[in-house]
Amino acid sequence: MKVKVSRKANFNAAHRLYRKDWSFEKNEAVFGKCNNPRYHGHNYDLIVSVEGEIDPETGYVMDMKVLKDLIKDQVEERFDHKNLNEDVPDFQNLNPTAENIAVVIWNYLRPHIDSANKLEVVLYETPRNFVTYNG
Amino acid sequence: MKVKVSRKANFNAAHRLYRKDWSFEKNEAVFGKCNNPRYHGHNYDLIVSVEGEIDPETGYVMDMKVLKDLIKDQVEERFDHKNLNEDVPDFQNLNPTAENIAVVIWNYLRPHIDSANKLEVVLYETPRNFVTYNG
Amino acid sequence: MKVKVSRKANFNAAHRLYRKDWSFEKNEAVFGKCNNPRYHGHNYDLIVSVEGEIDPETGYVMDMKVLKDLIKDQVEERFDHKNLNEDVPDFQNLNPTAENIAVVIWNYLRPHIDSANKLEVVLYETPRNFVTYNG
Amino acid sequence: MKVKVSRKANFNAAHRLYRKDWSFEKNEAVFGKCNNPRYHGHNYDLIVSVEGEIDPETGYVMDMKVLKDLIKDQVEERFDHKNLNEDVPDFQNLNPTAENIAVVIWNYLRPHIDSANKLEVVLYETPRNFVTYNG
Amino acid sequence: MKVKVSRKANFNAAHRLYRKDWSFEKNEAVFGKCNNPRYHGHNYDLIVSVEGEIDPETGYVMDMKVLKDLIKDQVEERFDHKNLNEDVPDFQNLNPTAENIAVVIWNYLRPHIDSANKLEVVLYETPRNFVTYNG
Amino acid sequence: MKVKVSRKANFNAAHRLYRKDWSFEKNEAVFGKCNNPRYHGHNYDLIVSVEGEIDPETGYVMDMKVLKDLIKDQVEERFDHKNLNEDVPDFQNLNPTAENIAVVIWNYLRPHIDSANKLEVVLYETPRNFVTYNG
Repeated sequence: MKVKVSRKANFNAAHRLYRKDWSFEKNEAVFGKCNNPRYHGHNYDLIVSVEGEIDPETGYVMDMKVLKDLIKDQVEERFDHKNLNEDVPDFQNLNPTAENIAVVIWNYLRPHIDSANKLEVVLYETPRNFVTYNG
Repeated sequence: MKVKVSRKANFNAAHRLYRKDWSFEKNEAVFGKCNNPRYHGHNYDLIVSVEGEIDPETGYVMDMKVLKDLIKDQVEERFDHKNLNEDVPDFQNLNPTAENIAVVIWNYLRPHIDSANKLEVVLYETPRNFVTYNG
Repeated sequence: MKVKVSRKANFNAAHRLYRKDWSFEKNEAVFGKCNNPRYHGHNYDLIVSVEGEIDPETGYVMDMKVLKDLIKDQVEERFDHKNLNEDVPDFQNLNPTAENIAVVIWNYLRPHIDSANKLEVVLYETPRNFVTYNG
Repeated sequence: MKVKVSRKANFNAAHRLYRKDWSFEKNEAVFGKCNNPRYHGHNYDLIVSVEGEIDPETGYVMDMKVLKDLIKDQVEERFDHKNLNEDVPDFQNLNPTAENIAVVIWNYLRPHIDSANKLEVVLYETPRNFVTYNG
Repeated sequence: MKVKVSRKANFNAAHRLYRKDWSFEKNEAVFGKCNNPRYHGHNYDLIVSVEGEIDPETGYVMDMKVLKDLIKDQVEERFDHKNLNEDVPDFQNLNPTAENIAVVIWNYLRPHIDSANKLEVVLYETPRNFVTYNG
Repeated sequence: MKVKVSRKANFNAAHRLYRKDWSFEKNEAVFGKCNNPRYHGHNYDLIVSVEGEIDPETGYVMDMKVLKDLIKDQVEERFDHKNLNEDVPDFQNLNPTAENIAVVIWNYLRPHIDSANKLEVVLYETPRNFVTYNG
């Protein structure tokens, strides 16, 4: 019996959407107010889901405490109260759009999840804008 | 890398559930209090999702500002502060159930979304009743 | 020990904001799209609060089941799946703004609440617009 | 046209996570504070979804009133204001993890849903922990 | 400049509403299904607010980290994953209604808050039932 | 009949908590990770409330459209997608804590609200941390 278990977490970060290899004008045209060179920020909400068989011993697909700690170690420690562009090496040359942040998070989590299980990341940049990545 | 990007919007509308070709009694039996001939209404919440490849140039699947404006033009302008039965031609002969409204919204949006991308519409009639349509 | 106990309820209704004694043009100027003559609608959320002494026998200020039933009888039965302008006599000559609806609800509930206790009504017309009335 | 219709419900219950055939120490090591022998509890939120063709007669995949009543009869009557371990026979020898509760709910609902339609159960143990089961 | 600062927390607990000095029948008549002798439970949400002058040095009324830790020590450690009737001495002879729990929490927090500042506790038993206590 | 009308809005901004006249070490000791020199950020939610008499002509205390536009002009234009420390002159020498931001917002709104009416600002820095200011 396959079940998907989901854990919600969050982190607060600053970011700027732009490409270093574009002019300010081009960045402004494409990214608008998200291109503010002095940054803006968000409370990011994150839902990490793992789909797999229920362990008949425990009744768990995965211990949610383990998943919670994994998200803390792999995501919150890296991103919370950080400037994504300046403090996080992954975004040195990668635009920190919600899409790209979700992929980076998925890549950090994937090696720590049982390879028989599916992994999904949903990232809310705001309550009205969010993205979903399944690998 | 395929990502699903989602945008939440909303509109407030009146409607009545009934079929013109049924008697009042049959409508009452099937649709209950939703058949009030003087209408009732809802704050509809809408989540529109587009799934596709991340554009390596921008880091976007689709610019959320473009999706926001598209929802405004194609959905909010037609439905917000309207009587769905009386003001919206699509429901002249189609019962405005959440299911049918979601399909109508999907059909309005589909031509404006890159044909390589998938489109999904989730429509909340109330926080407890909602529907999902993928085409 | 005075405690305020609160109960959340909801009803879905159609309405139109306008005055019968004003021209259509004046109503349009003042009430904008809320003046649609064919109505629009909302999912109204309602929070009713009663403040009073804790009964040392029960540990209740007021039995929430009693408050729930009172809201059902006095508010939901009158307003749910109704057209406020057409179906509810209170709004025959009173504009059904959130402010006026909250006052009407407060007046219906007040006689049923212990006169030693305070009564408060919060009415959400949308998640972004709401009003509070204390009598 | 296939649409998924969803209905949200809830129930409040006590439970304890443990296996009768394990020592207290082993249960404590695996289930931590969820192994409190005097129980703890949750407000469980439940989303039941049915996916199928829209009935062209009614515009419904399934009458939400019918789905609401079905959830009340099959789930709320069994679980609400109950001790899952002590009051619900299904959990006499089955650990009431969110995963197992979701499967039990799905099994109770499945016979009452049109066999042509898909059934999905999402169960929130807390706003931050939830599971999804599709059969 | 007086500002009220608020911090949201939560705990999950089992409880039973009843009086030991009443018959089962009387408890059943007054507390209904909340009198289940094998307990039921809730995810309690808690909002603790402190009102006072902004410290011109820090711009804080009170450091939210300090308030967060205080709630953890005084409330979560005592109540989370507990049976309120069986595990918490305060409710040995006091019915754990939302009203009484809020007063108990307020009394635990009050000595730790600057006496010049006001303290308010809001306790949600469910998203639809909540209470407020100001001392 | 006095009613309080409330309008919810939001803005997304970067900030850093620190005092220019303190050493980095002292700022770190007092403000912890909020003192990141490269900033972090939040989705701020704002509830602005105006309390006054219902205008018997319109049934409004204040036209919510006017309040919405006022919040847009006075708050969103100044703060949305900005760095509060770098882009907003008010915080050149004032630490942008939630408390101070709420006071600054209140001061910007007050001259535009009828002097007979009360004004309240609630500012959510995160869903778990918020402040209330009444002047």
